[in-house]
Amino acid sequence: MRYPNGIKNNKSISYSNRGMTLENDINETNSFYLISNIAIIHKKPTPITITKVDYPCRKEAIIKEAHFKIPSTTDYNGLYKGRYLDFEAKETKTDIFPLRNIHEHQLCHLKKIIEHGGIGFLIVRFTSNNKTFLLQAEKLLSFIQNNNRKSIPICYFEKEGFLIKDKFNPRIDYLKVIDILYFEGEVLWIF
Amino acid sequence: MRYPNGIKNNKSISYSNRGMTLENDINETNSFYLISNIAIIHKKPTPITITKVDYPCRKEAIIKEAHFKIPSTTDYNGLYKGRYLDFEAKETKTDIFPLRNIHEHQLCHLKKIIEHGGIGFLIVRFTSNNKTFLLQAEKLLSFIQNNNRKSIPICYFEKEGFLIKDKFNPRIDYLKVIDILYFEGEVLWIF
Repeated sequence: MRYPNGIKNNKSISYSNRGMTLENDINETNSFYLISNIAIIHKKPTPITITKVDYPCRKEAIIKEAHFKIPSTTDYNGLYKGRYLDFEAKETKTDIFPLRNIHEHQLCHLKKIIEHGGIGFLIVRFTSNNKTFLLQAEKLLSFIQNNNRKSIPICYFEKEGFLIKDKFNPRIDYLKVIDILYFEGEVLWIF
Repeated sequence: MRYPNGIKNNKSISYSNRGMTLENDINETNSFYLISNIAIIHKKPTPITITKVDYPCRKEAIIKEAHFKIPSTTDYNGLYKGRYLDFEAKETKTDIFPLRNIHEHQLCHLKKIIEHGGIGFLIVRFTSNNKTFLLQAEKLLSFIQNNNRKSIPICYFEKEGFLIKDKFNPRIDYLKVIDILYFEGEVLWIF
């Protein structure tokens, strides 16, 4: 059982393999982009509802009870070359991407982002064969509109998406794909 | 004592006057913009570090201990007419805006937003005389660079900022100011 934000339950909190997760790879990549002054992209904090707060001394507040909320937007957004970027990142263990991994209001959100001139996409890692793809929100929404399937097979990502190769730094260089898709001919730095 | 996200301590949680706060007014305004398909602007969840989670049954996870983190970005960002928007909102009870209300890394963040082609600003409400201003990040940073003061007087907002008049709906129509500043001549809807 995985909680939002990759936190496991009380009895077995472990951060030993966090470096292996897609979320961690993307966070490290975003840090690289930020430090290198390439883009400003952050993961949004996990949305929670706080019900109890303890206030033992002036400078310290401890949340004593809170609940996870279903996110109404995607996990990541930011700014790159003057454009608004917005995306969700998911891992799957099989050769299909289950659509239940994306909430209905997240799909609505991505649709709105495109309508208003933003760049929306999905990053999916198929952990079984260690392949990470970027799929534009347009392609995701088109698949859902034209199929009754509850999952997207990896072949759709291979055909319509873009493979992001693992690197040392940045680990998941997804802006390279964004450059090809939206800024072709405007290469501002060497990979 | 106010905690991040407007939450008070355990003994005195009260939501009775939340409708009066700037945060609530901005959230309602953003909901109006979203529903009216004008802009997609959200408040980021309060950043916290979760240290204990209880997992009593399959569908329910309760956070039993968490701590507030200092935010590394501003509270609000989003997309309007193809442009990336980013801002912080603050209330102050006196006729000055204390600069300690804005963290150093939030200032760095706003500086980067401008550099990368985004629109960055501050919304400040002076509750004593019920005036709400929008001040562009450029003007905020310029004040800090050119002054040794630890606060910005209201007259600077009156001279360099834009007064946002309270309305019924949307309550704090800050995009009207953004239109004047960045989209003059491109008015797409009637106020």
